[in-house]
Amino acid sequence: MPDLRIQDIRVTPIAFYDPPLLNNAGCHEPFALRSIIEVETEDGVIGLGESYGVQEMIAALNELAPHLVGMSVTNISGLRARAAQVVCGETTGYSGQEGLLPRVIGAIEVAMWDALGKATGQRVVDLLGGQVREDVPFAAYLFYKFKSHAGQTATDPWGEVLTPEQLVGEAQKMVDQFGFRALKLKGGILPVEDEMAGLEALHAAFPDAPLRIDPNGGWHVHTALNLLPRLTGMIEYLEDPTLGIEANAVVQAATEIPLATNMYVVAEKHLPPAIRQDAFRVILSDHHYWGGLMASRHLARICEIWGLSLGMHSNSHLGISLAAMTHLAAATPNLTYDCDTHYPWQTDEVIEGGKDAFRFENGCLTVPEGPGLGVTLDRSELKRLHQNYLDCGILTRNDRAEMQKHQPDWQFARPRY
Amino acid sequence: MPDLRIQDIRVTPIAFYDPPLLNNAGCHEPFALRSIIEVETEDGVIGLGESYGVQEMIAALNELAPHLVGMSVTNISGLRARAAQVVCGETTGYSGQEGLLPRVIGAIEVAMWDALGKATGQRVVDLLGGQVREDVPFAAYLFYKFKSHAGQTATDPWGEVLTPEQLVGEAQKMVDQFGFRALKLKGGILPVEDEMAGLEALHAAFPDAPLRIDPNGGWHVHTALNLLPRLTGMIEYLEDPTLGIEANAVVQAATEIPLATNMYVVAEKHLPPAIRQDAFRVILSDHHYWGGLMASRHLARICEIWGLSLGMHSNSHLGISLAAMTHLAAATPNLTYDCDTHYPWQTDEVIEGGKDAFRFENGCLTVPEGPGLGVTLDRSELKRLHQNYLDCGILTRNDRAEMQKHQPDWQFARPRY
Repeated sequence: MPDLRIQDIRVTPIAFYDPPLLNNAGCHEPFALRSIIEVETEDGVIGLGESYGVQEMIAALNELAPHLVGMSVTNISGLRARAAQVVCGETTGYSGQEGLLPRVIGAIEVAMWDALGKATGQRVVDLLGGQVREDVPFAAYLFYKFKSHAGQTATDPWGEVLTPEQLVGEAQKMVDQFGFRALKLKGGILPVEDEMAGLEALHAAFPDAPLRIDPNGGWHVHTALNLLPRLTGMIEYLEDPTLGIEANAVVQAATEIPLATNMYVVAEKHLPPAIRQDAFRVILSDHHYWGGLMASRHLARICEIWGLSLGMHSNSHLGISLAAMTHLAAATPNLTYDCDTHYPWQTDEVIEGGKDAFRFENGCLTVPEGPGLGVTLDRSELKRLHQNYLDCGILTRNDRAEMQKHQPDWQFARPRY
Repeated sequence: MPDLRIQDIRVTPIAFYDPPLLNNAGCHEPFALRSIIEVETEDGVIGLGESYGVQEMIAALNELAPHLVGMSVTNISGLRARAAQVVCGETTGYSGQEGLLPRVIGAIEVAMWDALGKATGQRVVDLLGGQVREDVPFAAYLFYKFKSHAGQTATDPWGEVLTPEQLVGEAQKMVDQFGFRALKLKGGILPVEDEMAGLEALHAAFPDAPLRIDPNGGWHVHTALNLLPRLTGMIEYLEDPTLGIEANAVVQAATEIPLATNMYVVAEKHLPPAIRQDAFRVILSDHHYWGGLMASRHLARICEIWGLSLGMHSNSHLGISLAAMTHLAAATPNLTYDCDTHYPWQTDEVIEGGKDAFRFENGCLTVPEGPGLGVTLDRSELKRLHQNYLDCGILTRNDRAEMQKHQPDWQFARPRY
């Protein structure tokens, strides 16, 4: 029988190229940060995890790691308990310790599942309760974007996207390459009429595509209420139109369009008030901030019990995260909507097989073959991307400051319109 | 790597001796029924489950079993889906199909966990997320009872218990034998003043023991409200004092005593209304009716998120159920109260080691050693108890009819007082 005790945990921060994508908080920097977690058992089996790479996260992971040595990779409760003792957390970022803790737990928990799967010959999807779908559908994640990063002359491969025509071009390219069915527009950036023109252009060009818009809390309640008649019948859900649970509840009460969130129900403590106020009809889950795969299975069951729909959120990520998302989605019976993924925007990869390891067919992925998550580290790429991290000088994420490099007088505002 | 596909499922109904215990619905019959489930994998590993043994349950298990052949023992979602297709259920018993379905799922799911554990060398407690406590505390489950079964002259070993003095004697015997700390009184049977006298006698004899009383919905709201001042400070929780979610919410609003339930929050669909109405502060979980161990882990997480306390309910059961309850309780961080168990009332056993297989120390059990649930079938006892089942002629549970053998004019009433 395998010895499942943890003998070592390694955390490697990496940086990979990210395009100048726009959101309500600013602009993506030239590099996105990520942490790669390796949990090695006494038998030498290595489980992989991938999560956020900002300084606070790397520090917390490194602080926690030695406290987990000797624990079984099955011991999720032990991980949670020790993380709660060790992770103090700054009050900056991630809404403080309360936000950092589930992120740290989730990062390591995924690697523990991968190790358990590899040690016992089981796929993670099976350990999570069994596969309920062969194909896991993902959506095109459409962004407004600048042509180049600030101070750079090189044009990003996806070019400038600021007009309805450019937006339809970006969507067409994504649909052609990946076969996505659903289209999600990141909003809350341009004036509302410009974004509505973009959305209407997408609807005209892709009349059968389920559409979504995510203003990231960027609209006032009155703006959202005024737009509801035009959005009704055009979008499948409206994501975080305005700020907070209370204000979104006002919008939800006024419309048959389901409101979705990945901003205001992002931890277990948000569920009781959000459910009590009927603020959202769709929870966009994310195992990276929800505390891992088992916590995400609990969340899915909660959504089923309370009649909430379920989708999946993403940040900029590489293949270990994509594998974990795919296993989780394949194990989740009540996944209602096609999952979000930033994956098409990324050009680097840290797993063997590179960007060819995952093949989207009609917007869908199948669960990787092989035990655990079914992916293995490309150590030369890990080394290169870690060097990127050391060289790029970025230690946290600051979309606001990056935006101000493009437009010095730009100010953050939420709601903005 | 182990071949975890199910090659066979066997369901054996058994009957074992049960004392003439009283409750609001009547009297226990001379035999309690149970089903023993064996899930055998392609490798010949046998996972064990134990659940209800009434006719409807045995029929449903036997109907479902062949539909699960070929499925992996990890595939809980597959089990749930196939059970939902196959288990039609009568509208009698268990509140119809909605009650039968999770019971069937739970019965087989436990055996699947046991098989997975045995095949991979892991204990079920570890597969459920890890052990959070060494000792699992159980409570003394005190019953009013008749001296003998109807029409029989043989005195049951525990004798008659109908007076406060007899009740204290029963409690003393249980505490002496098992070391239980908490004492639970099954109520809703005798006139309220008689049961209060019993409770006050217990409190006087065991002043440090956390007390509970469970009238099984047998009191009117006004009765419960009138008793609250006398119960306050004497009991740790009040279980199902009156009928239904709405009426119990009225009682809960009037007292600081936590109300507990195993009658009105017994399925996932009861959680939203019970939580909305703040009807109970303690959920008494039971993997047998809640849909299994994973569903019970989900329930525990829900209790933690919504700030509900958690205990564990039991019916008459043998050692496979006790093992499963112990693994689950040992894996549940937020278990608030000592678990219920009928185990001291049972004299028969179906696992190797018999009644010596479990040793209560200070009212606690440790998790059985060995992979899976850590228990194995005693096949000669299984055969004997199955013969009991064939001989006893009991096919369902009818406490009401049994009570009328003792007292022909007895009528069921809930609330009664």
